[in-house]
Amino acid sequence: MTPNQPTARIRKSPEQVRTAVHQAVIDLLCDPEGEDLNIPAIAQRAGVNHTSVYRRWGSLDTLLADMVTTRLERVSPLNDTGTLRGDLLAWAQASAASIRTPEGRALVRAVILSMPNSAQAQDERAQHFRRRMDSIEQIRQRATARGENPPPFEQILDQLIAPFYLRAIFGIDLPATGYPELLVDRLLSTTDGPATT
Amino acid sequence: MTPNQPTARIRKSPEQVRTAVHQAVIDLLCDPEGEDLNIPAIAQRAGVNHTSVYRRWGSLDTLLADMVTTRLERVSPLNDTGTLRGDLLAWAQASAASIRTPEGRALVRAVILSMPNSAQAQDERAQHFRRRMDSIEQIRQRATARGENPPPFEQILDQLIAPFYLRAIFGIDLPATGYPELLVDRLLSTTDGPATT
Repeated sequence: MTPNQPTARIRKSPEQVRTAVHQAVIDLLCDPEGEDLNIPAIAQRAGVNHTSVYRRWGSLDTLLADMVTTRLERVSPLNDTGTLRGDLLAWAQASAASIRTPEGRALVRAVILSMPNSAQAQDERAQHFRRRMDSIEQIRQRATARGENPPPFEQILDQLIAPFYLRAIFGIDLPATGYPELLVDRLLSTTDGPATT
Repeated sequence: MTPNQPTARIRKSPEQVRTAVHQAVIDLLCDPEGEDLNIPAIAQRAGVNHTSVYRRWGSLDTLLADMVTTRLERVSPLNDTGTLRGDLLAWAQASAASIRTPEGRALVRAVILSMPNSAQAQDERAQHFRRRMDSIEQIRQRATARGENPPPFEQILDQLIAPFYLRAIFGIDLPATGYPELLVDRLLSTTDGPATT
């Protein structure tokens, strides 16, 4: 970024445009005035021409999906902690830290807004979501490679991912302390019968 | 309802207007063409004048909230089964049956669309959601009255409600069989340490 230069009328690099546009989306979603989220408003706040936003992303859905993917990667680092429990706890701690911020909750709302909305698009929504959960699949694969026995993806979905998302979506505060540990311990101590997993 | 009469230009009772308008919202949300959800479109599909919709509900948010409350009550009957496990299972089975239908998933999207969207409105969103979870509170109260020891509301939220909502929102299929039992059994077999509940 170039803090010494005015943002308008300076030709930004593609990466600078991307960063400015993503930040503008977050700012609009966090805006207490609740301004409508649309490409002209985003472009104006980002200080870029709206035609270049349309040219690059095509639609608001695509822009939101791109932003969400980029930001979620940033808040969900994939460092190998050496154990399944450590990796899951790192994911849960990063998620908890994120959704305690207005920006993090705005990001979850953006995930939902970025999804195809028609009833017919259910499979597409599921695929989008699954791709965003790549970091969980990588944690599972590392655990298997270590000889650990990770829970099935759907169990992690129900017991770890769902509580964070639900609380972010509905604005329900997380318990002040120990919440990542609570959810991870519940997940890893669950022993479902063989017929149900 | 009056199937033998044309719907237009017949003066509907307030309850008929309400039913027609609620159904129009569901139809629009299930429409594969993904038409925008707004009061004129809803009124047209319901065969009522849009001014009477504005007069009665004031805004789309209020209309959606009214519809969601009415419909959720219908899909979440509160019959006393005699045990905590039975009551939770009845709630879970009704939820599973509901979100297997396009109408049920549309209802969950309507819950989200009906919530105040600005970042500042987080507390308001949480209160809305909590009111919609009244049936869970009633299940807890009945259990306490029987001398059973129900889990705290937040644990039911994380382990039972969140998985259903997340799957409905993101279009992730439920396991074909045994899912309500699986979630209820997990919930009731969880023994968190005393410091974390």
